[in-house]
Amino acid sequence: MKLDLLDTTLRDGAQGVGVEFSPDDRRRVIHALDDLGVSCIEAGMITDEASAAFFESLRREKLNHARLAVFTRTARAGTDPASDPLLKMAADAPVPVAVIYGKAWLYQVTEVLGTTAEENLRIIRESIRVLREAGKEVVFDAEHFFSGWADSPEYAMRVADEAWAAGASAVVLCDTNGGMLPDVIGMVTGAVVQAHPGKTVGIHCHNDMGMAAAATVSAVLSGASHVQGTVSGVGERCGNADLCTLIPVLQVKLGYDCVGERIAGLTETARAVCDAANLSFDESSPFVGGYAFTHKAGAHIDGVRKAPAAFEHMDPAVVGNIRNTVVSGLSGRAAILDRIRALLPEAELSKDDERVVRASAMIREREAAGFDYEDAGASLTLALEETLSMRKRFFELLSLKVVIDEPTEESAGGRDLFSASAVIKIAVGEREYLTAGEGNGPVNAIDEALRRALTRFYPELQTVRLTDYRVRVLDSKATASAVRVAIESTDGRTVWRTVGVSSDIINASWQALRDSVEYVLAGKRSAD
Amino acid sequence: MKLDLLDTTLRDGAQGVGVEFSPDDRRRVIHALDDLGVSCIEAGMITDEASAAFFESLRREKLNHARLAVFTRTARAGTDPASDPLLKMAADAPVPVAVIYGKAWLYQVTEVLGTTAEENLRIIRESIRVLREAGKEVVFDAEHFFSGWADSPEYAMRVADEAWAAGASAVVLCDTNGGMLPDVIGMVTGAVVQAHPGKTVGIHCHNDMGMAAAATVSAVLSGASHVQGTVSGVGERCGNADLCTLIPVLQVKLGYDCVGERIAGLTETARAVCDAANLSFDESSPFVGGYAFTHKAGAHIDGVRKAPAAFEHMDPAVVGNIRNTVVSGLSGRAAILDRIRALLPEAELSKDDERVVRASAMIREREAAGFDYEDAGASLTLALEETLSMRKRFFELLSLKVVIDEPTEESAGGRDLFSASAVIKIAVGEREYLTAGEGNGPVNAIDEALRRALTRFYPELQTVRLTDYRVRVLDSKATASAVRVAIESTDGRTVWRTVGVSSDIINASWQALRDSVEYVLAGKRSAD
Repeated sequence: MKLDLLDTTLRDGAQGVGVEFSPDDRRRVIHALDDLGVSCIEAGMITDEASAAFFESLRREKLNHARLAVFTRTARAGTDPASDPLLKMAADAPVPVAVIYGKAWLYQVTEVLGTTAEENLRIIRESIRVLREAGKEVVFDAEHFFSGWADSPEYAMRVADEAWAAGASAVVLCDTNGGMLPDVIGMVTGAVVQAHPGKTVGIHCHNDMGMAAAATVSAVLSGASHVQGTVSGVGERCGNADLCTLIPVLQVKLGYDCVGERIAGLTETARAVCDAANLSFDESSPFVGGYAFTHKAGAHIDGVRKAPAAFEHMDPAVVGNIRNTVVSGLSGRAAILDRIRALLPEAELSKDDERVVRASAMIREREAAGFDYEDAGASLTLALEETLSMRKRFFELLSLKVVIDEPTEESAGGRDLFSASAVIKIAVGEREYLTAGEGNGPVNAIDEALRRALTRFYPELQTVRLTDYRVRVLDSKATASAVRVAIESTDGRTVWRTVGVSSDIINASWQALRDSVEYVLAGKRSAD
Repeated sequence: MKLDLLDTTLRDGAQGVGVEFSPDDRRRVIHALDDLGVSCIEAGMITDEASAAFFESLRREKLNHARLAVFTRTARAGTDPASDPLLKMAADAPVPVAVIYGKAWLYQVTEVLGTTAEENLRIIRESIRVLREAGKEVVFDAEHFFSGWADSPEYAMRVADEAWAAGASAVVLCDTNGGMLPDVIGMVTGAVVQAHPGKTVGIHCHNDMGMAAAATVSAVLSGASHVQGTVSGVGERCGNADLCTLIPVLQVKLGYDCVGERIAGLTETARAVCDAANLSFDESSPFVGGYAFTHKAGAHIDGVRKAPAAFEHMDPAVVGNIRNTVVSGLSGRAAILDRIRALLPEAELSKDDERVVRASAMIREREAAGFDYEDAGASLTLALEETLSMRKRFFELLSLKVVIDEPTEESAGGRDLFSASAVIKIAVGEREYLTAGEGNGPVNAIDEALRRALTRFYPELQTVRLTDYRVRVLDSKATASAVRVAIESTDGRTVWRTVGVSSDIINASWQALRDSVEYVLAGKRSAD
């Protein structure tokens, strides 16, 4: 059975704290979702000239799978929807679908809208007609449907009836407050589906119970065939149902058709959308997270090598993800052995090989000093090469000096007080080279200077740039006052992560920067 | 009905990528969980002298509510459990409970253990007896129980039978791979419960389907009365069931007794455990997250003011959380009005007040420049005071100079290459003061110098320290190459967050540092 997926990352998702989208971000998200093959993408609300202009600009975007939707609200009580300015803007938007929300909870109608049961039905009916007459397919989001059902099931059902009668193609039952449990969602959805054979019933859940995915699945099993959610579950409060969880559960585990074969692009889509939105990606996300198929405990790592089906609930390749093992004090030598085998494919190796034992000791020692290789695979690879006496040094640092200028006076409105410059001298073979860089503070200045110096010798570094830079003070640990710097770098195609630890932030950064460029130079970009 | 809660943050949680606990961390987590009132705390596994010494050290800890447990495994096939060294260490641990895991999936027994069905039953039976004879209460974790049930329900059931017969107080059904859906978990748990009247059946779920909480609730509704989970759902791959979600769902929504009145400490516990473990806390966590009852969309902010029950599924105070509104371009003037009312309690204010309009414009302008006040309430308060011409300046920056020393040679093993020092001159009233600080890089050096200079005048700053420092490059936004620095500070009792934006990281850091200390000096510590 085919399900309609409506993505609301750009609308409900944008209501999450810390979530913001520029028009460019929005376009990138739209194309990523189109590539994934969702049926419909809610591109936002039109509230002013800027948002109207954004929708106009969407005329130029060619989509292959998805239809675009504009989001709007019913007209206010006591007004004529035909002359409502926001509805008119939505009706004029150059997209085929309009999603409109109205209230299905009588208590809200009287207490929040301050109007009557009948007037609420009228504005829903007439608002939908305005959009239908403009040629739109109309999806009706019945806000607070489940709370409304608990209050007055008759009224909630009348709201749905009116929406369908006015021409809505789907009525979406929304658990707007997120307070309902999956059983209730399934039961109520089933009642609506059974009362309306042949109609499309949709589901829109929030994660306030930590059960948005389960509640959505419960609704689908009860007959809902239109599913709303967001990438990574972003959204107001605790977020929305996560489409990256729902798609594999519904399609792989339960046999519904969501995006067909395009499901193999799910992991890439999740990262692309989070990247476009400048959202940090949760690596422990089900199915698509970097840790979703990552094994850490020694017993599990041993086990997954013997019988993958014994420790993995599905093949990660189905959603475009990969199996991974991480190396830490807990992971035991099996994981280290795997890593060393990748470096020494020709060698005969066992867990008791002296090189494996030595590498294991090195990792424990560095962990004690504050290093964390679990999420810094590139630095781990280089550290193992060092232990195996395989690490190639591509340059030597002869000197490095950083100067931060003295400010003359404090600016009132945020003008720059400081500027940092770095002077670096390196040697590559017999050749020495001195250059300088400046930047957003000292680490950036060093990065700039280092890259300028090295690209003379290694032009492949030209496309490399820093994408993230995190500092964690390790004060509560044995290693008092050390800092750990984690850097994420990209060449536009892949991402790799490195780490440095020192009592000095610049030194820790230097270690991570050096690892980042040496990792590229060693040609290891795709290995971690 | 009373449920037994077993927290496994320190054991299964520690298998999460990036999760690590020092012995001190473990003690802090144990006390936070004891204060919350969980029944049992799994403190870890004993595998060597260091972990045995840690358990010995627990003799000194006085707990009020929880019993401590040691985690261990069944003896290996073909061996005598009575002479197994790990079982002996667990038996000798000075804690009343032992949790032991064994396999309930026939495929795993033959493929991973490489032994027979009967031999697996023997080692389970005899391993439990070793612990019982040492006086332990024994909880048996039936690993892969649900996969095992799908393979051979008879064998899975026999494993449970043997465990009870050998003296286990509870048999815990584990969805070790996390691949099962809530319906199946509920159905299988119900079958086990019904076959064993009067016995305690437990549930242990993983979040690979994004449904660990829903699956756990499904098991409890089917009769499970022992519940395992971790704080914030930390754990291997996608994590475990989140106790901070389960406790309010089970107790508040479904009427089970989990921790009684101590549930009011849940929000504080969640933060305390994450802080002790050095885990970043997910503010969008259900119930306990800083965003769980935070409203951003203008319509919701208006609505929640009129009728809280219309927009909140429960009173946040029940779990020790608070309602919040965030101020952003999306939130509209209602939220800003609330903030200004807090600053001007005497004033008659409406949404159209000139001061509200001016503050709204200021926020939009700063957001366009890259500021993000959603998670920097202290900086927002100060920015509003500035707009209202209320902000008090506690000192003036006369000059600031940062020097980073030139390294002489590169260290091989991670010795420090650089050290940063800052020279600062400030004025407080008529008095000028020059001092210096050094630290982990330039920002730390400035922080140190600033605090040394100011504590002469403001001794209350002595207890203030930075707890986190994040930098985000805003390169993909309109504000090209700006950086946003977010700082988290504490005085040991409360936490506040500030933000700075500039094209220069030092200047952005300076803004955030200045806000942090001025926020304390203005006596606003508890307001945000």
